[in-house]
Amino acid sequence: MATMKALVYTAPSTIELQTRPKPTIKAPTDAIIRIQHASICGTDLHILKGDVPSIQPERILGHEGVGTVEEIGASVSKFAVGDRVLIASQTCCGGCRFCQRGIVSHCDEGGWQLGNRVDGTQAEYVRIPHANLSLHKIPDGIPGRIAIMLSDVLPTGMECGTLNGNVSPGGSVVIIGAGPIGVGCLLTAQLYSPATLVMVDVDEARLEQARAMGAQTVNTRAPDAKETLDRLTDGQGFDSVIEAVGIPATFEQAQELVAVGGSIANVGVHGVKVDLHIEKLWDRNISINMALVNATSIPRLMRLVQSGMLDVSSLVTHSFPMAQADQAYSTFQAAAQHRALKVTIDIE
Amino acid sequence: MATMKALVYTAPSTIELQTRPKPTIKAPTDAIIRIQHASICGTDLHILKGDVPSIQPERILGHEGVGTVEEIGASVSKFAVGDRVLIASQTCCGGCRFCQRGIVSHCDEGGWQLGNRVDGTQAEYVRIPHANLSLHKIPDGIPGRIAIMLSDVLPTGMECGTLNGNVSPGGSVVIIGAGPIGVGCLLTAQLYSPATLVMVDVDEARLEQARAMGAQTVNTRAPDAKETLDRLTDGQGFDSVIEAVGIPATFEQAQELVAVGGSIANVGVHGVKVDLHIEKLWDRNISINMALVNATSIPRLMRLVQSGMLDVSSLVTHSFPMAQADQAYSTFQAAAQHRALKVTIDIE
Amino acid sequence: MATMKALVYTAPSTIELQTRPKPTIKAPTDAIIRIQHASICGTDLHILKGDVPSIQPERILGHEGVGTVEEIGASVSKFAVGDRVLIASQTCCGGCRFCQRGIVSHCDEGGWQLGNRVDGTQAEYVRIPHANLSLHKIPDGIPGRIAIMLSDVLPTGMECGTLNGNVSPGGSVVIIGAGPIGVGCLLTAQLYSPATLVMVDVDEARLEQARAMGAQTVNTRAPDAKETLDRLTDGQGFDSVIEAVGIPATFEQAQELVAVGGSIANVGVHGVKVDLHIEKLWDRNISINMALVNATSIPRLMRLVQSGMLDVSSLVTHSFPMAQADQAYSTFQAAAQHRALKVTIDIE
Amino acid sequence: MATMKALVYTAPSTIELQTRPKPTIKAPTDAIIRIQHASICGTDLHILKGDVPSIQPERILGHEGVGTVEEIGASVSKFAVGDRVLIASQTCCGGCRFCQRGIVSHCDEGGWQLGNRVDGTQAEYVRIPHANLSLHKIPDGIPGRIAIMLSDVLPTGMECGTLNGNVSPGGSVVIIGAGPIGVGCLLTAQLYSPATLVMVDVDEARLEQARAMGAQTVNTRAPDAKETLDRLTDGQGFDSVIEAVGIPATFEQAQELVAVGGSIANVGVHGVKVDLHIEKLWDRNISINMALVNATSIPRLMRLVQSGMLDVSSLVTHSFPMAQADQAYSTFQAAAQHRALKVTIDIE
Repeated sequence: MATMKALVYTAPSTIELQTRPKPTIKAPTDAIIRIQHASICGTDLHILKGDVPSIQPERILGHEGVGTVEEIGASVSKFAVGDRVLIASQTCCGGCRFCQRGIVSHCDEGGWQLGNRVDGTQAEYVRIPHANLSLHKIPDGIPGRIAIMLSDVLPTGMECGTLNGNVSPGGSVVIIGAGPIGVGCLLTAQLYSPATLVMVDVDEARLEQARAMGAQTVNTRAPDAKETLDRLTDGQGFDSVIEAVGIPATFEQAQELVAVGGSIANVGVHGVKVDLHIEKLWDRNISINMALVNATSIPRLMRLVQSGMLDVSSLVTHSFPMAQADQAYSTFQAAAQHRALKVTIDIE
Repeated sequence: MATMKALVYTAPSTIELQTRPKPTIKAPTDAIIRIQHASICGTDLHILKGDVPSIQPERILGHEGVGTVEEIGASVSKFAVGDRVLIASQTCCGGCRFCQRGIVSHCDEGGWQLGNRVDGTQAEYVRIPHANLSLHKIPDGIPGRIAIMLSDVLPTGMECGTLNGNVSPGGSVVIIGAGPIGVGCLLTAQLYSPATLVMVDVDEARLEQARAMGAQTVNTRAPDAKETLDRLTDGQGFDSVIEAVGIPATFEQAQELVAVGGSIANVGVHGVKVDLHIEKLWDRNISINMALVNATSIPRLMRLVQSGMLDVSSLVTHSFPMAQADQAYSTFQAAAQHRALKVTIDIE
Repeated sequence: MATMKALVYTAPSTIELQTRPKPTIKAPTDAIIRIQHASICGTDLHILKGDVPSIQPERILGHEGVGTVEEIGASVSKFAVGDRVLIASQTCCGGCRFCQRGIVSHCDEGGWQLGNRVDGTQAEYVRIPHANLSLHKIPDGIPGRIAIMLSDVLPTGMECGTLNGNVSPGGSVVIIGAGPIGVGCLLTAQLYSPATLVMVDVDEARLEQARAMGAQTVNTRAPDAKETLDRLTDGQGFDSVIEAVGIPATFEQAQELVAVGGSIANVGVHGVKVDLHIEKLWDRNISINMALVNATSIPRLMRLVQSGMLDVSSLVTHSFPMAQADQAYSTFQAAAQHRALKVTIDIE
Repeated sequence: MATMKALVYTAPSTIELQTRPKPTIKAPTDAIIRIQHASICGTDLHILKGDVPSIQPERILGHEGVGTVEEIGASVSKFAVGDRVLIASQTCCGGCRFCQRGIVSHCDEGGWQLGNRVDGTQAEYVRIPHANLSLHKIPDGIPGRIAIMLSDVLPTGMECGTLNGNVSPGGSVVIIGAGPIGVGCLLTAQLYSPATLVMVDVDEARLEQARAMGAQTVNTRAPDAKETLDRLTDGQGFDSVIEAVGIPATFEQAQELVAVGGSIANVGVHGVKVDLHIEKLWDRNISINMALVNATSIPRLMRLVQSGMLDVSSLVTHSFPMAQADQAYSTFQAAAQHRALKVTIDIE
């Protein structure tokens, strides 16, 4: 039996580099991908903390990856062996009631499968169910380390942040949280040319990165933070507020910052309930939108990267070979200290 | 000086039928309307409880009315003396940054003015600011008692309930609260032909009224209420949840009833904050929309009433002459007991 | 080899009832359906006239059908043998660039396949490619002769007519052409509660049918037709004009009838170019929308039929057993004379 | 009586610099503006050719202007004497059935009034009806010659080109016609970050200007023009085709270039009917949108200019004092020869 190296979640706080059987085609709609790069998502850290009940020990981690098609099932018509492909973080059957409405993340046979309910991308090979709908060809000229930003972080920024926040030309946008997801929101919000685009965080190094990418910044810990934020919108509040942290304090802040007629897009993963100040907001004509990424924006994001309109290179701050996966994880776990945004694991 | 009779808020819990000066044109954009019918809104009851800080004693109440144009200012070009008109609950300048985006309820010079910041409609005459934008001609054949349902309750149902709830053909809708606003939501939701339309309340008489208007109903106090609601959507939840009560318990229920990919439209006026179970909802691709009515749907609602497509007669359950205004208010205050939905005060 | 009866296009103007091999699974995504009812579409008449270049002689006709799942391929996960199913007129892979944007009718591996590029539904059995995405379960209680209206004519009315015409509550709608497609537009336009809904044709019997379904009607041949149409919209024109004929004269009429700010939805299949009076229309803020049906509205239409909100029984005017297929076709060819709308062929 | 200098249309092909009475307030909603800059629109050239039947001799020309508020009527609440303002090309009452739907250009009391039905902006003073809704404050720091680009050409590009063409991130756009309106489309299309943005014209100097602004270009007269255009979209056609010329040949080209599922936005002013190839397009799921500008996008365009996100300085190629208005007109009439895009007349 052919084997491979894989990063395996074995218990809370524990990842092992194991030798595992190389995956094989199980259904005609499957494809086997030889992985070139995987990357680490904040969700992988949640798994390590033991916060994700759906995952079982011995699961190979990872739902972000690029690689080469190694083998295809009989029903896979869109890809051929040798194609260089991006793996979408969401698996999609195309035919269920959710897929038919574009809510792929709740697909009856899919959604977040990789590195969760089936083995993931942080391995030499991965089996991709419903390959026709869950892979995307990578145009020549886009490096793998760039393309992998389209597995999850960029579609999440685009769909859950920018589109759900109704970002539009000439509008005002504030993004709360300057981590990788916040930056994914920033890069995609810029595609819609807001007149005011502010990034808020407590970490000055992250705010410096955000400024380099074109945002104005406010450090929430600054004594005049509230006044500065008020001034930036002439006291009107922000048309689009993107919450990219996931704790009660930042959701509270989102409610304080939203303008009459504005939108709050929740991107953060929340573990506890929050207060909704509906006694203040009920008559302010606002909407609050929350979503798990569908990754359906990948084709247009790929064209934007290919055309040079969308430069995501600043997101990729660190890369490690598979043998140093421990270091990749520890770097991402202490991201602020390392000024890390996205960390890739280079497998091939 | 010409005088008139008017219903005046003098102190919490106190309304007096007073003789007051007849209003006169103050600005070229004003019109004076001789009132035929006024009606009472739940907001008037909030005023009586002393819950509306913007209102001052000696204010004439009422923001719902129909009547005849008595006099117009020099800039009023859309209406002539003698026109029979509906008064919109929202006043609108047309030129401010909110009006230009259709958020008339936050108009810099308007919004909820009548019976709040200026004298209202529960009087023999009322001065209407920005008359060109705040009045609507009533087509022949529509009785005044019917037309007045378009001042506030029907636009609120349409805009804050039906449109904000994204009601659509073949979808599933639940309306929480079978009072007049809930019925306004019901009648306008039916315009979009949902496949499932359920009204929820604790009052059996109100549910009986809702059934007569074509809704399925569930009494929240029934021991099997939850099972019944689950069964009505095959356990999927409702695409559109309309909260038309305004207390934490009903907002909680709204969150339990919403389907993946669905919308919660908040119509209720809330006095205290609520819990938002974002720890359960964050990945369910839902939106929560809340709004004060803009009343911009009046023209299309008027055409629907005129064409017979929208029958609002079941909303008008009680009418009293002005001399019995006390009884009109007491009937509306004990609405469930009187099976009252909307109560009109017939002035002329 | 198992055989079956099938209606085969052999040459222009010629259909034969032949004995043909029963179809078998060719790809893991296929299903074989035992047909209960097929129906005839206007497109089948175009085929008979020799107007459809993509079709080859010896093709089994038909893209509308209901039946029972007889056999499934290894990748078919949504359906089981014995399921009663509706066959969508459009075949859909789910993964190509068109399917991902909802433009299923241009699917790289699908679109209009049945009775065109592969054998169709007017047979005892049919092979359905991409079965997971191209079949729909029929709820208990919906007769097959009713369900089959959702293969093509109702989705066409909904998508190409009602949605592309931006029909909305309180708006005004005119449908040009009272044949089966026009009626499909009428029944689905009513789901959106327009205030004015007018059907135009030259055949008085068809207009009588339209009146029975709730439309106002105007016979274009009446000497005062133009005046009547003007009067119905107070000279404003129609917000939604649905062209359901497909000849230059009716497209001309559509341009005359559209209001400032309105939409023309083209549903008719045109064989020659038309004049666009852009010299009159350029500043009238209108849109012209044209489309081949995607059949993506089937799930919501099925729920509407199941709930009783959408009654399509008046569309099914004639039914014939397979042995009398000639008569079915001749009835549909002389539809106006027979007052025929849709004609079904009952196979099982 | 106070007098002023004004450019007056006296007969086809004839403009005179006349001394005319200074305008005065006629209605409470009027304002008088002292003009700083006016600019010339292609429509002014149509007037000179005698092609605009609504205009009468002795009319002062011009619907584009910036200046200072000199005097206001009693109903003008948004502006004070001394405010620096932009004049919208469309006049708007705010209260008619068209204004209430955002189709300001068809306003019952407004639309294109200035330099057409009332005296225009190419004068030392102009009377602006419905001033509250038809003027916009100019933020400090935006020069008048820049702001005036927002009277007409930028809103037209945004509304009639970019929005009606459904330009979106990652999409493909072709603009036919590289004159000032085409450039207005280009600058606003860029706000939505299309992946492919191509300008087509026959004049190489104009294409050079378009390249300097970031577009790819194709000269229609090049022998390989069609192949180049095909190659730029991999043979798929363009998602957004913007027709900014207004003759049958360019509308024909628009139909050839549009992709399945795409949009044609007509911006050109057409004098004769065109062929619509509905026999080819009927099943391609396209829309054709045509509109007169409403100028409702001015507030967001102003914020974009103020923030530096939208640089319109390249549009302003020539400026002349009022005394050289003849030269201004002759330069604009021979725009290609002078490499002229917009020509301003500096009055104060």
